[in-house]
Amino acid sequence: MDALNIGQFDLISNAFSFAIAVMGAATIFLFLGRSQVAPQYKTAVTISGIVTLIAFYHYWRIFDSWQGAYTVTKTGLEATSHKFNDAYRYVDWLLTVPLLLIELILVMRLSREETISKAQKLAGAAALMILLGYPGEIASDTSTKFQWWFLSMIPFVYIVFSLFTGLSKAINSQPESVRDLIITARNLTVLSWCFYPIVYALYFFPAANLGSGKVTMYVQVGYTIADIVAKAVFGVFIWVVAMRKSETNA
Amino acid sequence: MDALNIGQFDLISNAFSFAIAVMGAATIFLFLGRSQVAPQYKTAVTISGIVTLIAFYHYWRIFDSWQGAYTVTKTGLEATSHKFNDAYRYVDWLLTVPLLLIELILVMRLSREETISKAQKLAGAAALMILLGYPGEIASDTSTKFQWWFLSMIPFVYIVFSLFTGLSKAINSQPESVRDLIITARNLTVLSWCFYPIVYALYFFPAANLGSGKVTMYVQVGYTIADIVAKAVFGVFIWVVAMRKSETNA
Repeated sequence: MDALNIGQFDLISNAFSFAIAVMGAATIFLFLGRSQVAPQYKTAVTISGIVTLIAFYHYWRIFDSWQGAYTVTKTGLEATSHKFNDAYRYVDWLLTVPLLLIELILVMRLSREETISKAQKLAGAAALMILLGYPGEIASDTSTKFQWWFLSMIPFVYIVFSLFTGLSKAINSQPESVRDLIITARNLTVLSWCFYPIVYALYFFPAANLGSGKVTMYVQVGYTIADIVAKAVFGVFIWVVAMRKSETNA
Repeated sequence: MDALNIGQFDLISNAFSFAIAVMGAATIFLFLGRSQVAPQYKTAVTISGIVTLIAFYHYWRIFDSWQGAYTVTKTGLEATSHKFNDAYRYVDWLLTVPLLLIELILVMRLSREETISKAQKLAGAAALMILLGYPGEIASDTSTKFQWWFLSMIPFVYIVFSLFTGLSKAINSQPESVRDLIITARNLTVLSWCFYPIVYALYFFPAANLGSGKVTMYVQVGYTIADIVAKAVFGVFIWVVAMRKSETNA
Protein backbone atom coordinates (compact mmCIF):
# COMPACT_ATOMS: atom_id res chain seq x y z
CA MET A 1 0.00 0.00 0.00
CA ASP A 2 1.83 3.08 -1.24
CA ALA A 3 1.21 6.33 0.58
CA LEU A 4 0.05 9.44 -1.26
CA ASN A 5 2.78 11.08 -3.36
CA ILE A 6 3.20 14.72 -4.40
CA GLY A 7 1.89 14.10 -7.92
CA GLN A 8 -1.33 12.59 -6.54
CA PHE A 9 -1.63 15.34 -3.94
CA ASP A 10 -1.31 18.01 -6.67
CA LEU A 11 -3.76 16.26 -8.98
CA ILE A 12 -6.37 16.16 -6.22
CA SER A 13 -5.71 19.84 -5.36
CA ASN A 14 -6.18 20.77 -9.02
CA ALA A 15 -9.38 18.75 -9.24
CA PHE A 16 -10.77 20.61 -6.19
CA SER A 17 -9.78 23.99 -7.65
CA PHE A 18 -11.38 23.01 -10.96
CA ALA A 19 -14.61 22.19 -9.09
CA ILE A 20 -14.54 25.59 -7.33
CA ALA A 21 -14.26 27.32 -10.73
CA VAL A 22 -16.98 25.21 -12.35
CA MET A 23 -19.45 25.49 -9.47
CA GLY A 24 -18.89 29.27 -9.19
CA ALA A 25 -19.30 29.74 -12.95
CA ALA A 26 -22.45 27.60 -13.03
CA THR A 27 -23.95 29.53 -10.10
CA ILE A 28 -23.51 32.91 -11.81
CA PHE A 29 -24.74 31.49 -15.10
CA LEU A 30 -27.91 30.14 -13.47
CA PHE A 31 -28.61 33.23 -11.37
CA LEU A 32 -28.24 35.50 -14.43
CA GLY A 33 -30.04 33.05 -16.72
CA ARG A 34 -32.96 32.95 -14.28
CA SER A 35 -34.16 36.28 -15.71
CA GLN A 36 -34.54 34.66 -19.13
CA VAL A 37 -37.07 31.95 -18.19
CA ALA A 38 -40.85 32.26 -17.74
CA PRO A 39 -42.09 32.95 -14.18
CA GLN A 40 -43.29 29.36 -13.63
CA TYR A 41 -39.72 28.00 -14.09
CA LYS A 42 -37.83 30.57 -12.03
CA THR A 43 -37.89 28.47 -8.83
CA ALA A 44 -36.41 25.43 -10.59
CA VAL A 45 -33.55 27.59 -11.95
CA THR A 46 -33.06 29.35 -8.59
CA ILE A 47 -32.66 25.96 -6.89
CA SER A 48 -30.25 24.80 -9.59
CA GLY A 49 -28.07 27.85 -8.84
CA ILE A 50 -28.35 27.31 -5.11
CA VAL A 51 -27.16 23.72 -5.48
CA THR A 52 -24.01 24.83 -7.33
CA LEU A 53 -23.52 27.69 -4.85
CA ILE A 54 -23.61 25.24 -1.91
CA ALA A 55 -21.15 23.02 -3.77
CA PHE A 56 -18.92 26.05 -4.53
CA TYR A 57 -18.78 26.82 -0.81
CA HIS A 58 -17.99 23.23 0.15
CA TYR A 59 -15.30 22.78 -2.50
CA TRP A 60 -13.63 25.91 -1.18
CA ARG A 61 -13.61 24.34 2.32
CA ILE A 62 -12.53 20.98 0.89
CA PHE A 63 -9.64 22.65 -0.97
CA ASP A 64 -8.48 24.44 2.18
CA SER A 65 -8.87 21.33 4.34
CA TRP A 66 -6.86 19.33 1.77
CA GLN A 67 -4.06 21.93 1.69
CA GLY A 68 -3.95 21.93 5.48
CA ALA A 69 -3.78 18.13 5.73
CA TYR A 70 -0.36 17.85 4.06
CA THR A 71 2.87 19.82 3.88
CA VAL A 72 5.18 19.71 0.90
CA THR A 73 8.75 19.49 2.15
CA LYS A 74 12.01 19.21 0.26
CA THR A 75 11.94 15.44 0.74
CA GLY A 76 8.30 14.76 -0.12
CA LEU A 77 4.77 14.91 1.23
CA GLU A 78 4.08 14.86 4.97
CA ALA A 79 0.72 14.50 6.68
CA THR A 80 0.05 17.25 9.24
CA SER A 81 -1.92 16.71 12.44
CA HIS A 82 -5.06 18.11 10.74
CA LYS A 83 -6.80 15.26 8.97
CA PHE A 84 -8.61 16.00 5.72
CA ASN A 85 -12.27 16.61 6.57
CA ASP A 86 -14.39 14.20 4.52
CA ALA A 87 -17.56 15.39 6.24
CA TYR A 88 -17.75 18.47 3.99
CA ARG A 89 -18.82 16.22 1.13
CA TYR A 90 -21.59 14.60 3.15
CA VAL A 91 -22.87 17.89 4.52
CA ASP A 92 -22.91 19.14 0.93
CA TRP A 93 -24.75 16.10 -0.37
CA LEU A 94 -27.26 16.16 2.48
CA LEU A 95 -28.32 19.59 1.22
CA THR A 96 -27.78 19.33 -2.52
CA VAL A 97 -28.96 15.83 -3.43
CA PRO A 98 -32.58 16.33 -2.23
CA LEU A 99 -32.54 19.76 -3.95
CA LEU A 100 -31.34 18.23 -7.24
CA LEU A 101 -34.35 15.93 -7.31
CA ILE A 102 -36.64 18.86 -6.49
CA GLU A 103 -35.15 20.80 -9.44
CA LEU A 104 -36.04 17.97 -11.79
CA ILE A 105 -39.59 17.69 -10.42
CA LEU A 106 -40.17 21.47 -10.48
CA VAL A 107 -39.04 21.96 -14.07
CA MET A 108 -41.61 19.35 -15.14
CA ARG A 109 -44.41 21.47 -13.71
CA LEU A 110 -46.73 18.70 -12.55
CA SER A 111 -49.90 19.31 -10.52
CA ARG A 112 -49.34 20.80 -7.07
CA GLU A 113 -50.29 17.53 -5.31
CA GLU A 114 -48.01 15.42 -7.48
CA THR A 115 -45.13 17.89 -7.08
CA ILE A 116 -45.38 17.82 -3.30
CA SER A 117 -45.79 14.06 -3.03
CA LYS A 118 -42.93 13.25 -5.42
CA ALA A 119 -40.66 15.88 -3.85
CA GLN A 120 -41.26 14.51 -0.35
CA LYS A 121 -40.65 10.89 -1.28
CA LEU A 122 -37.58 11.45 -3.44
CA ALA A 123 -35.95 14.14 -1.29
CA GLY A 124 -36.59 12.08 1.85
CA ALA A 125 -35.04 8.97 0.31
CA ALA A 126 -32.06 11.05 -0.90
CA ALA A 127 -31.42 12.44 2.59
CA LEU A 128 -31.65 8.93 4.05
CA MET A 129 -29.20 7.64 1.44
CA ILE A 130 -26.58 10.25 2.40
CA LEU A 131 -27.07 9.73 6.14
CA LEU A 132 -26.57 5.98 5.74
CA GLY A 133 -23.47 6.45 3.62
CA TYR A 134 -21.54 8.61 6.06
CA PRO A 135 -20.80 6.09 8.86
CA GLY A 136 -19.19 3.88 6.21
CA GLU A 137 -17.12 6.73 4.78
CA ILE A 138 -15.49 7.44 8.15
CA ALA A 139 -15.26 3.80 9.29
CA SER A 140 -11.77 2.35 9.18
CA ASP A 141 -12.49 -1.34 8.58
CA THR A 142 -13.77 -2.50 5.22
CA SER A 143 -16.58 -4.72 6.53
CA THR A 144 -18.22 -1.77 8.32
CA LYS A 145 -17.67 0.30 5.17
CA PHE A 146 -19.43 -2.38 3.15
CA GLN A 147 -22.35 -2.65 5.58
CA TRP A 148 -23.21 1.04 5.43
CA TRP A 149 -22.65 1.14 1.68
CA PHE A 150 -25.18 -1.67 1.37
CA LEU A 151 -27.75 0.08 3.58
CA SER A 152 -27.26 3.31 1.66
CA MET A 153 -27.90 1.45 -1.59
CA ILE A 154 -31.48 0.68 -0.53
CA PRO A 155 -32.77 4.27 -0.83
CA PHE A 156 -30.43 4.69 -3.84
CA VAL A 157 -32.11 1.86 -5.72
CA TYR A 158 -35.53 3.15 -4.65
CA ILE A 159 -34.76 6.60 -6.13
CA VAL A 160 -33.39 5.22 -9.39
CA PHE A 161 -36.41 2.93 -9.64
CA SER A 162 -38.80 5.84 -8.99
CA LEU A 163 -37.06 8.00 -11.59
CA PHE A 164 -37.58 5.27 -14.17
CA THR A 165 -41.12 4.19 -13.28
CA GLY A 166 -43.06 6.85 -11.36
CA LEU A 167 -41.51 9.67 -13.35
CA SER A 168 -42.04 8.01 -16.73
CA LYS A 169 -45.76 8.74 -16.67
CA ALA A 170 -45.08 12.35 -15.73
CA ILE A 171 -42.49 12.64 -18.50
CA ASN A 172 -44.99 11.40 -21.07
CA SER A 173 -47.31 14.26 -20.12
CA GLN A 174 -44.59 16.82 -21.00
CA PRO A 175 -44.79 18.83 -24.26
CA GLU A 176 -43.10 16.98 -27.09
CA SER A 177 -40.52 19.72 -27.66
CA VAL A 178 -38.90 19.05 -24.28
CA ARG A 179 -39.69 15.38 -23.66
CA ASP A 180 -36.33 14.18 -24.97
CA LEU A 181 -34.51 16.87 -22.99
CA ILE A 182 -36.20 15.79 -19.75
CA ILE A 183 -35.45 12.15 -20.46
CA THR A 184 -31.80 13.13 -20.97
CA ALA A 185 -31.85 15.11 -17.69
CA ARG A 186 -33.31 12.09 -15.88
CA ASN A 187 -30.70 9.78 -17.44
CA LEU A 188 -27.92 12.25 -16.61
CA THR A 189 -29.04 12.15 -12.98
CA VAL A 190 -29.06 8.36 -12.84
CA LEU A 191 -25.78 8.04 -14.75
CA SER A 192 -23.89 10.59 -12.63
CA TRP A 193 -25.33 9.08 -9.46
CA CYS A 194 -24.03 5.64 -10.35
CA PHE A 195 -20.52 7.08 -10.05
CA TYR A 196 -20.88 7.55 -6.28
CA PRO A 197 -21.46 3.98 -5.10
CA ILE A 198 -18.79 2.79 -7.55
CA VAL A 199 -16.24 5.31 -6.25
CA TYR A 200 -17.22 4.46 -2.67
CA ALA A 201 -16.83 0.74 -3.44
CA LEU A 202 -13.13 1.31 -4.25
CA TYR A 203 -12.62 1.39 -0.48
CA PHE A 204 -13.53 -2.24 -0.01
CA PHE A 205 -13.03 -3.77 -3.44
CA PRO A 206 -10.10 -6.08 -2.82
CA ALA A 207 -10.01 -6.90 -6.53
CA ALA A 208 -9.01 -3.32 -7.22
CA ASN A 209 -5.82 -3.95 -5.24
CA LEU A 210 -4.73 -0.33 -5.38
CA GLY A 211 -2.23 1.41 -3.13
CA SER A 212 -3.79 3.74 -0.56
CA GLY A 213 -2.47 6.79 -2.48
CA LYS A 214 -4.19 5.59 -5.64
CA VAL A 215 -7.45 4.83 -3.78
CA THR A 216 -7.46 8.33 -2.31
CA MET A 217 -6.80 9.79 -5.76
CA TYR A 218 -9.56 7.83 -7.50
CA VAL A 219 -12.06 8.45 -4.71
CA GLN A 220 -11.44 12.21 -4.52
CA VAL A 221 -11.18 12.84 -8.26
CA GLY A 222 -14.08 10.45 -8.91
CA TYR A 223 -16.41 12.21 -6.45
CA THR A 224 -15.37 15.58 -7.90
CA ILE A 225 -16.19 14.61 -11.49
CA ALA A 226 -19.49 13.05 -10.37
CA ASP A 227 -20.39 16.26 -8.48
CA ILE A 228 -19.59 18.44 -11.50
CA VAL A 229 -21.82 16.35 -13.77
CA ALA A 230 -24.63 15.88 -11.24
CA LYS A 231 -24.76 19.55 -10.15
CA ALA A 232 -23.24 21.95 -12.72
CA VAL A 233 -23.92 20.11 -15.99
CA PHE A 234 -27.32 18.97 -14.73
CA GLY A 235 -28.18 22.49 -13.52
CA VAL A 236 -27.42 24.06 -16.90
CA PHE A 237 -29.51 21.31 -18.44
CA ILE A 238 -32.46 22.23 -16.23
CA TRP A 239 -32.03 25.84 -17.42
CA VAL A 240 -32.10 24.70 -21.07
CA VAL A 241 -35.32 22.77 -20.40
CA ALA A 242 -36.80 25.83 -18.67
CA MET A 243 -35.78 28.10 -21.59
CA ARG A 244 -37.22 25.72 -24.17
CA LYS A 245 -40.49 25.38 -22.23
CA SER A 246 -40.68 29.18 -21.79
CA GLU A 247 -40.33 29.70 -25.55
CA THR A 248 -43.14 27.31 -26.39
CA ASN A 249 -45.18 28.74 -23.50
CA ALA A 250 -45.69 25.20 -22.23
CA MET B 1 21.14 29.17 -18.19
CA ASP B 2 20.55 31.94 -15.67
CA ALA B 3 18.13 31.29 -12.83
CA LEU B 4 15.22 33.63 -12.18
CA ASN B 5 16.28 36.92 -10.60
CA ILE B 6 14.29 39.27 -8.34
CA GLY B 7 13.53 41.72 -11.17
CA GLN B 8 12.02 38.97 -13.27
CA PHE B 9 10.13 37.55 -10.28
CA ASP B 10 8.60 40.98 -9.57
CA LEU B 11 7.72 41.62 -13.21
CA ILE B 12 5.83 38.31 -13.35
CA SER B 13 4.05 39.08 -10.04
CA ASN B 14 2.98 42.45 -11.42
CA ALA B 15 1.75 40.89 -14.66
CA PHE B 16 -0.39 38.44 -12.66
CA SER B 17 -1.81 41.24 -10.51
CA PHE B 18 -2.55 43.26 -13.68
CA ALA B 19 -4.47 40.26 -15.04
CA ILE B 20 -6.52 39.98 -11.81
CA ALA B 21 -7.50 43.66 -12.13
CA VAL B 22 -8.38 43.42 -15.84
CA MET B 23 -10.35 40.16 -15.54
CA GLY B 24 -12.28 41.43 -12.50
CA ALA B 25 -13.09 44.72 -14.22
CA ALA B 26 -14.17 42.99 -17.44
CA THR B 27 -16.42 40.63 -15.45
CA ILE B 28 -18.30 43.46 -13.75
CA PHE B 29 -18.53 45.40 -17.02
CA LEU B 30 -20.03 42.43 -18.83
CA PHE B 31 -22.44 41.45 -16.06
CA LEU B 32 -23.74 45.01 -15.80
CA GLY B 33 -23.72 45.51 -19.58
CA ARG B 34 -25.78 42.35 -19.98
CA SER B 35 -28.93 44.29 -19.07
CA GLN B 36 -28.39 46.62 -22.04
CA VAL B 37 -28.53 44.02 -24.81
CA ALA B 38 -31.63 42.44 -26.39
CA PRO B 39 -32.85 39.15 -24.81
CA GLN B 40 -31.48 36.97 -27.63
CA TYR B 41 -27.90 38.14 -26.90
CA LYS B 42 -27.97 37.89 -23.11
CA THR B 43 -26.56 34.36 -22.99
CA ALA B 44 -23.56 35.35 -25.16
CA VAL B 45 -22.77 38.27 -22.83
CA THR B 46 -23.36 36.11 -19.71
CA ILE B 47 -20.83 33.58 -20.99
CA SER B 48 -18.34 36.36 -21.83
CA GLY B 49 -18.54 37.52 -18.22
CA ILE B 50 -18.24 34.00 -16.88
CA VAL B 51 -15.07 33.46 -18.92
CA THR B 52 -13.41 36.52 -17.39
CA LEU B 53 -14.71 35.51 -13.93
CA ILE B 54 -13.13 32.06 -14.25
CA ALA B 55 -9.89 33.73 -15.39
CA PHE B 56 -10.09 36.18 -12.46
CA TYR B 57 -10.33 33.24 -10.05
CA HIS B 58 -7.42 31.43 -11.64
CA TYR B 59 -5.16 34.49 -11.78
CA TRP B 60 -5.81 34.94 -8.08
CA ARG B 61 -4.68 31.35 -7.46
CA ILE B 62 -1.75 31.79 -9.89
CA PHE B 63 -0.62 34.94 -8.08
CA ASP B 64 -0.77 33.19 -4.68
CA SER B 65 0.98 30.09 -5.99
CA TRP B 66 3.72 32.28 -7.54
CA GLN B 67 4.26 34.17 -4.27
CA GLY B 68 4.47 30.89 -2.38
CA ALA B 69 6.99 29.37 -4.78
CA TYR B 70 9.80 31.85 -3.96
CA THR B 71 11.14 33.72 -0.96
CA VAL B 72 12.98 36.98 -1.33
CA THR B 73 15.99 36.91 1.01
CA LYS B 74 18.74 39.46 1.69
CA THR B 75 20.97 37.66 -0.80
CA GLY B 76 18.45 37.06 -3.58
CA LEU B 77 15.59 34.86 -4.68
CA GLU B 78 15.17 31.37 -3.25
CA ALA B 79 12.78 28.66 -4.43
CA THR B 80 10.61 27.22 -1.63
CA SER B 81 9.48 23.60 -1.48
CA HIS B 82 6.13 24.59 -3.02
CA LYS B 83 6.55 24.56 -6.78
CA PHE B 84 4.60 27.11 -8.84
CA ASN B 85 1.41 25.36 -9.98
CA ASP B 86 1.28 25.59 -13.78
CA ALA B 87 -1.87 23.47 -13.83
CA TYR B 88 -4.07 26.47 -12.94
CA ARG B 89 -3.57 27.82 -16.46
CA TYR B 90 -4.61 24.56 -18.07
CA VAL B 91 -7.60 24.09 -15.79
CA ASP B 92 -8.60 27.65 -16.72
CA TRP B 93 -8.17 27.08 -20.45
CA LEU B 94 -10.02 23.77 -20.33
CA LEU B 95 -13.07 25.72 -19.18
CA THR B 96 -12.66 29.09 -20.87
CA VAL B 97 -11.41 28.23 -24.37
CA PRO B 98 -14.48 26.16 -25.32
CA LEU B 99 -16.69 28.89 -23.78
CA LEU B 100 -14.95 31.61 -25.82
CA LEU B 101 -15.83 29.82 -29.04
CA ILE B 102 -19.42 29.35 -27.81
CA GLU B 103 -19.62 33.14 -27.15
CA LEU B 104 -18.64 33.86 -30.72
CA ILE B 105 -21.17 31.37 -32.11
CA LEU B 106 -24.00 32.56 -29.83
CA VAL B 107 -23.60 36.24 -30.70
CA MET B 108 -24.01 35.34 -34.37
CA ARG B 109 -27.44 33.90 -33.63
CA LEU B 110 -27.51 31.11 -36.20
CA SER B 111 -30.26 28.48 -36.38
CA ARG B 112 -30.55 26.18 -33.35
CA GLU B 113 -29.19 23.18 -35.27
CA GLU B 114 -26.22 25.13 -36.64
CA THR B 115 -25.47 26.65 -33.22
CA ILE B 116 -25.45 23.25 -31.51
CA SER B 117 -23.40 21.53 -34.22
CA LYS B 118 -20.78 24.30 -34.48
CA ALA B 119 -20.57 24.65 -30.70
CA GLN B 120 -20.02 20.93 -30.22
CA LYS B 121 -17.33 20.66 -32.89
CA LEU B 122 -15.38 23.77 -31.93
CA ALA B 123 -15.68 23.38 -28.15
CA GLY B 124 -14.73 19.72 -28.39
CA ALA B 125 -11.66 20.48 -30.49
CA ALA B 126 -10.71 23.26 -28.07
CA ALA B 127 -10.90 20.95 -25.05
CA LEU B 128 -8.82 18.35 -26.90
CA MET B 129 -6.23 21.01 -27.76
CA ILE B 130 -5.81 21.97 -24.08
CA LEU B 131 -5.69 18.36 -22.87
CA LEU B 132 -2.95 17.55 -25.40
CA GLY B 133 -0.93 20.61 -24.43
CA TYR B 134 -0.71 19.88 -20.72
CA PRO B 135 1.57 16.80 -20.71
CA GLY B 136 4.10 18.88 -22.68
CA GLU B 137 3.87 21.82 -20.31
CA ILE B 138 4.80 19.67 -17.30
CA ALA B 139 7.36 17.49 -19.12
CA SER B 140 10.95 18.26 -18.32
CA ASP B 141 12.71 17.28 -21.56
CA THR B 142 12.32 19.36 -24.70
CA SER B 143 11.59 16.50 -27.09
CA THR B 144 8.53 15.42 -25.05
CA LYS B 145 7.50 19.08 -24.89
CA PHE B 146 7.75 19.31 -28.66
CA GLN B 147 5.77 16.11 -29.21
CA TRP B 148 2.75 17.27 -27.19
CA TRP B 149 2.98 20.76 -28.67
CA PHE B 150 2.78 19.19 -32.11
CA LEU B 151 -0.23 16.98 -31.19
CA SER B 152 -1.97 19.95 -29.62
CA MET B 153 -1.43 21.92 -32.84
CA ILE B 154 -3.69 19.51 -34.79
CA PRO B 155 -6.96 20.60 -33.12
CA PHE B 156 -5.56 24.17 -33.04
CA VAL B 157 -5.18 24.22 -36.82
CA TYR B 158 -8.60 22.59 -37.21
CA ILE B 159 -10.24 25.35 -35.12
CA VAL B 160 -8.47 28.17 -36.96
CA PHE B 161 -9.38 26.55 -40.27
CA SER B 162 -13.04 26.19 -39.18
CA LEU B 163 -13.17 29.81 -38.06
CA PHE B 164 -11.97 30.92 -41.49
CA THR B 165 -13.98 28.56 -43.68
CA GLY B 166 -17.10 27.14 -41.96
CA LEU B 167 -17.77 30.38 -40.14
CA SER B 168 -17.28 32.56 -43.23
CA LYS B 169 -20.63 31.50 -44.66
CA ALA B 170 -22.32 32.18 -41.34
CA ILE B 171 -20.61 35.57 -41.13
CA ASN B 172 -21.89 36.52 -44.58
CA SER B 173 -25.44 35.91 -43.36
CA GLN B 174 -24.98 38.51 -40.59
CA PRO B 175 -26.53 41.98 -40.94
CA GLU B 176 -24.17 44.35 -42.73
CA SER B 177 -23.91 46.70 -39.75
CA VAL B 178 -22.09 44.08 -37.66
CA ARG B 179 -20.38 41.95 -40.31
CA ASP B 180 -17.09 43.81 -40.01
CA LEU B 181 -17.28 43.69 -36.22
CA ILE B 182 -17.75 39.92 -36.23
CA ILE B 183 -14.90 39.49 -38.70
CA THR B 184 -12.73 41.55 -36.33
CA ALA B 185 -13.84 39.39 -33.38
CA ARG B 186 -12.99 36.26 -35.33
CA ASN B 187 -9.59 37.68 -36.32
CA LEU B 188 -8.94 38.78 -32.73
CA THR B 189 -9.58 35.20 -31.58
CA VAL B 190 -7.21 33.75 -34.14
CA LEU B 191 -4.55 36.40 -33.54
CA SER B 192 -4.60 36.11 -29.75
CA TRP B 193 -4.62 32.34 -29.97
CA CYS B 194 -1.47 32.33 -32.09
CA PHE B 195 0.37 33.78 -29.09
CA TYR B 196 -0.04 30.54 -27.12
CA PRO B 197 1.82 28.06 -29.31
CA ILE B 198 4.54 30.68 -29.89
CA VAL B 199 4.98 31.29 -26.17
CA TYR B 200 4.92 27.54 -25.53
CA ALA B 201 7.52 27.01 -28.27
CA LEU B 202 10.01 29.14 -26.31
CA TYR B 203 10.51 26.05 -24.16
CA PHE B 204 12.10 24.06 -26.94
CA PHE B 205 13.33 26.67 -29.42
CA PRO B 206 17.06 26.30 -29.13
CA ALA B 207 17.45 29.30 -31.43
CA ALA B 208 15.95 31.47 -28.72
CA ASN B 209 18.90 30.53 -26.51
CA LEU B 210 17.48 32.24 -23.48
CA GLY B 211 18.44 31.68 -19.87
CA SER B 212 15.84 29.78 -17.81
CA GLY B 213 14.90 32.96 -15.94
CA LYS B 214 14.21 34.74 -19.23
CA VAL B 215 12.21 31.79 -20.58
CA THR B 216 10.04 31.75 -17.46
CA MET B 217 9.51 35.50 -17.75
CA TYR B 218 8.54 35.44 -21.44
CA VAL B 219 6.30 32.39 -20.98
CA GLN B 220 4.43 33.76 -17.95
CA VAL B 221 4.10 37.34 -19.20
CA GLY B 222 3.32 36.09 -22.72
CA TYR B 223 0.50 33.81 -21.57
CA THR B 224 -0.87 36.61 -19.40
CA ILE B 225 -1.03 39.12 -22.27
CA ALA B 226 -2.58 36.50 -24.55
CA ASP B 227 -5.21 35.69 -21.89
CA ILE B 228 -6.12 39.35 -21.45
CA VAL B 229 -6.61 39.85 -25.21
CA ALA B 230 -8.40 36.53 -25.79
CA LYS B 231 -10.77 36.85 -22.82
CA ALA B 232 -11.24 40.44 -21.60
CA VAL B 233 -10.74 42.41 -24.84
CA PHE B 234 -12.59 39.75 -26.83
CA GLY B 235 -15.43 39.64 -24.27
CA VAL B 236 -15.99 43.39 -24.45
CA PHE B 237 -15.94 43.04 -28.22
CA ILE B 238 -18.72 40.45 -28.06
CA TRP B 239 -20.71 42.90 -25.96
CA VAL B 240 -20.22 45.65 -28.58
CA VAL B 241 -21.47 43.28 -31.30
CA ALA B 242 -24.47 42.36 -29.11
CA MET B 243 -25.23 46.07 -28.49
CA ARG B 244 -24.98 46.92 -32.19
CA LYS B 245 -27.21 44.00 -33.15
CA SER B 246 -29.72 44.93 -30.43
CA GLU B 247 -29.98 48.49 -31.79
CA THR B 248 -30.68 47.36 -35.33
CA ASN B 249 -33.05 44.70 -33.92
CA ALA B 250 -31.18 42.10 -35.99
